[in-house]
Amino acid sequence: MLIYTIATMIQVEEALSIIAENSTNMPVQKIQVSKSLGYILAETVYSPIAMPPFRQSAMDGYAFIHSEKHQYDIVGISQAGDHSKIKLKENEAVRIFTGAHVPNNADTVIMQEHVMATEKSILITRMPEQFANVRNKGEQIGEEEVVFKANTLITPAAIGFLACLGITEVEVFKKPKVAILVTGNELVEPGEKLSKGKIYESNSVMLQAALQTIGIKKTKVYKVKDNLKATKKALKEILKKNDIVLISGGISVGDYDFVKEALLENGVQELFYKINQKPGKPMFFGSKNDTLVFALPGNPASSLTNFYIYVYPAIKNRMGFSDIHLKKMLRKLNDNVTNTTGKTLFLKALYDETHVTVLNGQSSAMLNTFAIANSLLVVPNDVESLKKGQLVTLLPID
Amino acid sequence: MLIYTIATMIQVEEALSIIAENSTNMPVQKIQVSKSLGYILAETVYSPIAMPPFRQSAMDGYAFIHSEKHQYDIVGISQAGDHSKIKLKENEAVRIFTGAHVPNNADTVIMQEHVMATEKSILITRMPEQFANVRNKGEQIGEEEVVFKANTLITPAAIGFLACLGITEVEVFKKPKVAILVTGNELVEPGEKLSKGKIYESNSVMLQAALQTIGIKKTKVYKVKDNLKATKKALKEILKKNDIVLISGGISVGDYDFVKEALLENGVQELFYKINQKPGKPMFFGSKNDTLVFALPGNPASSLTNFYIYVYPAIKNRMGFSDIHLKKMLRKLNDNVTNTTGKTLFLKALYDETHVTVLNGQSSAMLNTFAIANSLLVVPNDVESLKKGQLVTLLPID
Repeated sequence: MLIYTIATMIQVEEALSIIAENSTNMPVQKIQVSKSLGYILAETVYSPIAMPPFRQSAMDGYAFIHSEKHQYDIVGISQAGDHSKIKLKENEAVRIFTGAHVPNNADTVIMQEHVMATEKSILITRMPEQFANVRNKGEQIGEEEVVFKANTLITPAAIGFLACLGITEVEVFKKPKVAILVTGNELVEPGEKLSKGKIYESNSVMLQAALQTIGIKKTKVYKVKDNLKATKKALKEILKKNDIVLISGGISVGDYDFVKEALLENGVQELFYKINQKPGKPMFFGSKNDTLVFALPGNPASSLTNFYIYVYPAIKNRMGFSDIHLKKMLRKLNDNVTNTTGKTLFLKALYDETHVTVLNGQSSAMLNTFAIANSLLVVPNDVESLKKGQLVTLLPID
Repeated sequence: MLIYTIATMIQVEEALSIIAENSTNMPVQKIQVSKSLGYILAETVYSPIAMPPFRQSAMDGYAFIHSEKHQYDIVGISQAGDHSKIKLKENEAVRIFTGAHVPNNADTVIMQEHVMATEKSILITRMPEQFANVRNKGEQIGEEEVVFKANTLITPAAIGFLACLGITEVEVFKKPKVAILVTGNELVEPGEKLSKGKIYESNSVMLQAALQTIGIKKTKVYKVKDNLKATKKALKEILKKNDIVLISGGISVGDYDFVKEALLENGVQELFYKINQKPGKPMFFGSKNDTLVFALPGNPASSLTNFYIYVYPAIKNRMGFSDIHLKKMLRKLNDNVTNTTGKTLFLKALYDETHVTVLNGQSSAMLNTFAIANSLLVVPNDVESLKKGQLVTLLPID
């Protein structure tokens, strides 16, 4: 009756490579620039116009033809949005505002703080260099020049730049559709009464929130009874409709864990099953076509650790990011840390501008420490101790 | 005809204090835990239950009463979700799974890897300590104990912890309603034809995206003609309906800028108007009741700089955050930087794990540099040079 699966345990680095190799780019889609924040460009974008589109004043002041003269007659006005057709003579100037068109034969703008002005004329009190305060046409970018290369991340500034060139749509890699499958007869919904032996189901809302932090706004949650038939049936539908499937619970070696069997029977190829780490050792990773399956540990803190270490880069990779992992950070360690486990440790930690402190309460079942942590300190499996004051690598999660 | 406003210029630090002093906390609201990511708790939360709610097994294995004996008869099973009523004798054990209820008089769980088992009995091959692998009731948190103090940020882990305690609603500070008002006759919508002298309006989508990065998902954009009457009328409605108003364009000293007049006539109190910095010098900050008004510079890069430096902390403050500013970061400078302006500089920069490089193209009209920057390097107004290799402060914006 008792069947214990003997699976090869792999190292963290190996798990990360397998995930990276199997996370293919999502298909591309056209998207409105105004909705493209956080996407990665799937095309190189060229500018349809020169920017600025005409010679612009960089100041509020007066446009004139640079000369030795200090006095000029005001013969007109050019405000933002105008197209001035005035042709200046040598002793003439035009009142002009920031961003406005500089009349064709003017070559210099004097800022208004450096003139004495009446309604009819100005006296320059501090002569600028020739060509001062004029932004040339195409100074920022020329027509048909590259705005952004493919694989650029779309930031607020990028959106601003695309919009100022009049670009309304870009081609990006789609975001993956992610589903969460929750198994476990011991689970009760928050808000319901907790009968004896039961616990509240919390991993699905936690994972939904973690997904939101990386731009996956909507995630469908499926809940099934802890048996093979129900799990197998649910998985069939979920695998068809999603690009990434997160499974919470039911993947340990216990007799009552049907998830792995249900996955294999649905044609999911196992890529690894256990990782030499703490917390988060038991994690099934597999794929079917391009859909990736992560069966995360049931313990909340293990589940969230593995989300940040493994699911996060998989999603980033599918979205076309080049830097797919949590950014590494270096800090000085505030305490000694020992590692007698032979495993890679991911320790909940709190960093400031210069130092990092490992928090108390590293149990895989405990989320309270995680809730106040802003980073994970990585202790590699072959490192037995880290000394106080040593520079260590951590992964910020804030 | 020409009226130049002579306004006192204040330093960056002063501007930041004035904004902090005037950004009051938003009112509180009840919110579902599942939707509370990124909010700040307005109440101290107490646990309605003990966690774990009962003595749990931390392993898949066998529960027994610790003794010298190595052989035990299997008399039952306790799986996750069960409430085992078995009363064990000294030579008896119960098959048990991770998270399952430990029978009342059992005190120890042996992991299954450390026994030889038949269907009827086990032989312990490696005796654990007494009380091993048992999570005590309330080990993580006791009933009525503090879960989170008021003013805690709700992270994915916090959501998981609240949910596992069965908590479905919490009281948080509301997010501010933000509106963007765009003025300027020179502006054309992206997608439309660009006639002579006009430019595309890009600040509103840029600011909307920047707001999204800090959790303000929906922002209404109002566009008005560059005249006093239209601006005044629009502002009246906008001030009534919003907690923060961002105005783009129309706040320089040019004759054609009606925004300041429209603000004052609507009862907005001016708190400052110019800051001794580059880019981003002209910025009106004012308030009416609790509503804050930022009239940002029209130049895109100036506008975005001031968003990160001033609007960002105002929003964080209103939402109840204790750390309201962009996190400071220390890096070694890759080049010499000089500052002959007497102003505080915010330079677009690119940092890696250890160093920071100041990017080319710091013009206030240019967004292309901003789009590839991941940080702003701060050069204080009284610092004339920063040397290559020196540790400098930067503000990450990625």
